[in-house]
Amino acid sequence: MSLLAVGSVAFDDLETPSGKRENVLGGSASHFSLSASRFTPVQVVAVVGEDFGPEQYRVFEGRPIDLAGLQRRPGLSFHWKGEYGVDLNEARTLETHLNVFAGFKPDLPPSYRTAPYLFLGNIEPSLQLEVVRQMDKRPIWIALDTMNFWIDGARGPLLDVLKMIDILLVNEAEARSLTGERNLLKVYQKVQALGPSILVVKRGEYGMLLLTPGGCFAAPAFPLEEVQDPTGAGDTFAGGFLGYLAAAGNLDLGTLKRAALAGTIMASFAVEAFGTERLQGLTEDAYQARCAAFEAMLHFG
Amino acid sequence: MSLLAVGSVAFDDLETPSGKRENVLGGSASHFSLSASRFTPVQVVAVVGEDFGPEQYRVFEGRPIDLAGLQRRPGLSFHWKGEYGVDLNEARTLETHLNVFAGFKPDLPPSYRTAPYLFLGNIEPSLQLEVVRQMDKRPIWIALDTMNFWIDGARGPLLDVLKMIDILLVNEAEARSLTGERNLLKVYQKVQALGPSILVVKRGEYGMLLLTPGGCFAAPAFPLEEVQDPTGAGDTFAGGFLGYLAAAGNLDLGTLKRAALAGTIMASFAVEAFGTERLQGLTEDAYQARCAAFEAMLHFG
Repeated sequence: MSLLAVGSVAFDDLETPSGKRENVLGGSASHFSLSASRFTPVQVVAVVGEDFGPEQYRVFEGRPIDLAGLQRRPGLSFHWKGEYGVDLNEARTLETHLNVFAGFKPDLPPSYRTAPYLFLGNIEPSLQLEVVRQMDKRPIWIALDTMNFWIDGARGPLLDVLKMIDILLVNEAEARSLTGERNLLKVYQKVQALGPSILVVKRGEYGMLLLTPGGCFAAPAFPLEEVQDPTGAGDTFAGGFLGYLAAAGNLDLGTLKRAALAGTIMASFAVEAFGTERLQGLTEDAYQARCAAFEAMLHFG
Repeated sequence: MSLLAVGSVAFDDLETPSGKRENVLGGSASHFSLSASRFTPVQVVAVVGEDFGPEQYRVFEGRPIDLAGLQRRPGLSFHWKGEYGVDLNEARTLETHLNVFAGFKPDLPPSYRTAPYLFLGNIEPSLQLEVVRQMDKRPIWIALDTMNFWIDGARGPLLDVLKMIDILLVNEAEARSLTGERNLLKVYQKVQALGPSILVVKRGEYGMLLLTPGGCFAAPAFPLEEVQDPTGAGDTFAGGFLGYLAAAGNLDLGTLKRAALAGTIMASFAVEAFGTERLQGLTEDAYQARCAAFEAMLHFG
């Protein structure tokens, strides 16, 4: 069943201890849709500029990714420049050029408006709300990602949209600044009072924590000997997690746990190369082999 | 089978966001032995002063904890004063009074010298080495804990004792400063070259990572709504982990994983109250109930 995803499509300039790359395809919607489309058809809502050409479109071809909602506008695409130190957990932003993203107004094609599942990627909360308003009917579930910039600077609109959200995906710092609590079980109680019944706390190299009314779950990141570029790991996790849930068609605790493992595995591939490169070349065999290795690792008899 | 443990026995003055306590029983050997003795008999090697009296001895009574190797010397016991901020991951040391611990020379009673399992708690590496030398025969396995103070300041003796170690337990910062690597799989390769074949990386609220020749394992901490005092959590984990292993009598990967879960559960109780209070009152029912809850949480079908 189709998963509608709104977010950014960008070019990234990246520097990590493994190297330096320019004009790499990035943005939350790119990472998310490449990951989610392994599990379920994805409909993308985003905006790009004239620099987004055949080479970029080709990345999404041959996959169940619908780009009817990808607007192309005069000007340049969103461009982000960032670097990571030896501690790959946090990016340092060097430059942000919003370009065409500054005037982004989501406009859902009619074929998108009945999507049963909706992911509101990390954009301005008022635009996330606008996407929900354009739906013909309330999706079966709505998931949302956000960041401290909106938690601090657009709290009102964010709280408005949170009332409609079923699944909130944030990192630890975001979870804490949203609720004012440090303990994650207390964070979860406050999140539930804001709207979302399911909370996913993304913890980078420590994996993730899943909090649901039926119980919680935690999974470590898949241990890797080399991480080339952590950019987009969270969006790739979200894509795998929500893509798996959309394909499964339910939110049972067991399904949520297996979805979390699927997202974790997808994210582990994403960070092995710059940008979306590793996901583009990911084979079914490689995915299945890593799933088996991860399950064997986590199994304790 | 008996597990011999050398370490410190201390009085702690503690301040955490949950409160303030003075003269609480602490030290690595206290936390370790109370935890390990749930699984296997423990023989303690440590030193205390004249301030260690009947009240303190009583804490260890009625458990399979042998205090024949607990020296009592003129003077005061090791005394540590520390505080924690809202982030409970790191203690700030306010005062350290070594007292009788400054002149500590391990002296193993004859009945200790054939112990099949040995834990060298975090003390000066030359003293850890001295304990190994006093054994009549090489134990089946030897485990070791250390800290950056020795990694930086007594590297030579530490490397000497590491050659004889099977299981190394350290936190992430210690693992990295010991090996000069950041990536934990690379850390593990270097640790193996130094001697230990099994590495346990303690990660506080993120749980632990277990690296063995047969595969790896990671477990999150047990989610708690309130942590009163994290002092001794690592020693309590080590006690549960190694106590379980000593009782099991093998180092199979499955056993190592279940031992890691046992240590994790014991540590989750330890932090619920100040000092050793929660472990002293821990019932079999409470332990089993939390094990069942943790296994249900980690199970993903």
